[in-house]
Amino acid sequence: MRLEELKTIAKRRRLDQLVVTGQADILALTGVNTDNGILTADALYTDFRYVAAARRVAPGLKVLDIKRFRPGGRRIGCSFAMPHSMFLALGEKAPRGVRFVDISKDLSALRAVKTPDEIERIRAAEKLACEIWENSRARFEPGMTERQMAAVIKKAMIDRGEGEAFPTIVCVGANAAECHHEPDDTVWNGREPVLVDMGVKLGGVCSDLTRNIPPRRRGGLYSKVYDLVLQANLAAIAAARPGITGRQLDKVARDVIMKGGFGRCFGHSLGHGVGFEIHEAPYASKKCDTALRPGMVVTIEPGVYLEGNLGVRIEDLVLITETGCEVLSPTAK
Amino acid sequence: MRLEELKTIAKRRRLDQLVVTGQADILALTGVNTDNGILTADALYTDFRYVAAARRVAPGLKVLDIKRFRPGGRRIGCSFAMPHSMFLALGEKAPRGVRFVDISKDLSALRAVKTPDEIERIRAAEKLACEIWENSRARFEPGMTERQMAAVIKKAMIDRGEGEAFPTIVCVGANAAECHHEPDDTVWNGREPVLVDMGVKLGGVCSDLTRNIPPRRRGGLYSKVYDLVLQANLAAIAAARPGITGRQLDKVARDVIMKGGFGRCFGHSLGHGVGFEIHEAPYASKKCDTALRPGMVVTIEPGVYLEGNLGVRIEDLVLITETGCEVLSPTAK
Repeated sequence: MRLEELKTIAKRRRLDQLVVTGQADILALTGVNTDNGILTADALYTDFRYVAAARRVAPGLKVLDIKRFRPGGRRIGCSFAMPHSMFLALGEKAPRGVRFVDISKDLSALRAVKTPDEIERIRAAEKLACEIWENSRARFEPGMTERQMAAVIKKAMIDRGEGEAFPTIVCVGANAAECHHEPDDTVWNGREPVLVDMGVKLGGVCSDLTRNIPPRRRGGLYSKVYDLVLQANLAAIAAARPGITGRQLDKVARDVIMKGGFGRCFGHSLGHGVGFEIHEAPYASKKCDTALRPGMVVTIEPGVYLEGNLGVRIEDLVLITETGCEVLSPTAK
Repeated sequence: MRLEELKTIAKRRRLDQLVVTGQADILALTGVNTDNGILTADALYTDFRYVAAARRVAPGLKVLDIKRFRPGGRRIGCSFAMPHSMFLALGEKAPRGVRFVDISKDLSALRAVKTPDEIERIRAAEKLACEIWENSRARFEPGMTERQMAAVIKKAMIDRGEGEAFPTIVCVGANAAECHHEPDDTVWNGREPVLVDMGVKLGGVCSDLTRNIPPRRRGGLYSKVYDLVLQANLAAIAAARPGITGRQLDKVARDVIMKGGFGRCFGHSLGHGVGFEIHEAPYASKKCDTALRPGMVVTIEPGVYLEGNLGVRIEDLVLITETGCEVLSPTAK
């Protein structure tokens, strides 16, 4: 439980009350998974369906009936990511003249630095993702469709983990140039390259991994692009350490790809945090001026996409350490 | 595409502009699946990742870059289910003095009455759910855990459909008394009853089905409860027709269970609409005064839960027709 950290937010933002309503936020802060919960610095309010589980998972936490919750004080902190209708309902219940303060960034920042327990869970989930990738790849055969290859992975995730952390992506050949390609009936002839982006849930947390099967015939444009993306991936891993901002880290990889002449073909940001949610802070992106800190877990996933031709993305999950980073994805690339 | 119906909302609510932001709403209205879209009565605004797919899926729809979207007019209709932060951003972009009108109920009402195409898809999804139930049940063996039984179902959903519509519930014995039990390592001894609540996605829509394996030894309390729940399920099916409200339909089933002496053990509402989302309008619940209309699809799922002892829920999916309803769940109960 991270309730002490929650109290720090309340103090720093001079809040009379904290009202945490997001399911993933409550899960990360208390370990309790409820889709109808309100967490304050003192108690979790939820309904009868979740009370028993909450008492089991978080024995030190006061659990109260959600009907008893009342917002109070003059400055109330809450995440503005909540539905607007919920915000209006909160306002109606609150005392007159109350001021609501958006604490979504405070909560994201808190969750961005993982606890030792979370780190061990993410490490295990990513290790499992790598094993499933290796086993699944060995079962891919020419003649299979993207959907069938994805099914091999998805079913292994059910047998060995808690299912998919996000919809598995399998792209044959030029389909890999579409950033959000969904597995379809495209058949793999065994000669074309394949891009696989996958993550399994385990212990309640997510993992994230992208690997590629190279084309039968090496050489040519694919190899050139692959080597460049790998260079960008390795450069970013070498640069990832406490103090570097998300923007700077993104630039390290982007510069490599720019110099290689494919700068316009890397149309997304370098990476994102991973934890209870598949996308969370920090972001290795132009838009993120957050400095990395030990305990953050972030993807490093540069890519180059040439429409109608090919796409390569190489993604590792890394843990920021005191001196640099540790790659959590133990599988060849 | 249901854009004409959207225009009807704009007219009825005297709106200068409609701003639909919810992913499921946009999907239901246009067939386009985008997590970064704004639909107006005239066009869909989205980003480059979804433009090609949108043009393919909805050729008659004008697709524009989301950066070009500007809210305008004096009365803007939008769903207050959107995140509060998004609502604030919309307000900042809008002309001064604009009034926002909540159209979430209008959108729900529109989606509650299914198109013929949606009905055929839901029918196929529910039929598949029934087949997967029958095949999976035949593979359940004494010694399997809830998790393993759920895995049989989940994997079949991947092979034959588009995966789970919601997390599959498998409850052995007294676990069925917990309304939100997650499959765990409880072992089935082959003699205890099992409750399974499952739904597969197919053609982008959801299905929903609850069935029970009776205990080896029939008779006693389980049979009494089962018969009562079945009676409630059948009474509600007989009563489901155009004109009856969600509240009235809930009461039909609840009265049967009350008369049987288990009124306090039916702690949830009778049912909910099913479509692109697993829970949508209309609700067969005390809180819903909506009259059912032909084309609505709703679950009928009464249950009786005796803590530490047993739980029974029998759930069918029904389509409201001109004269009554059609049960879409072709499997024995």
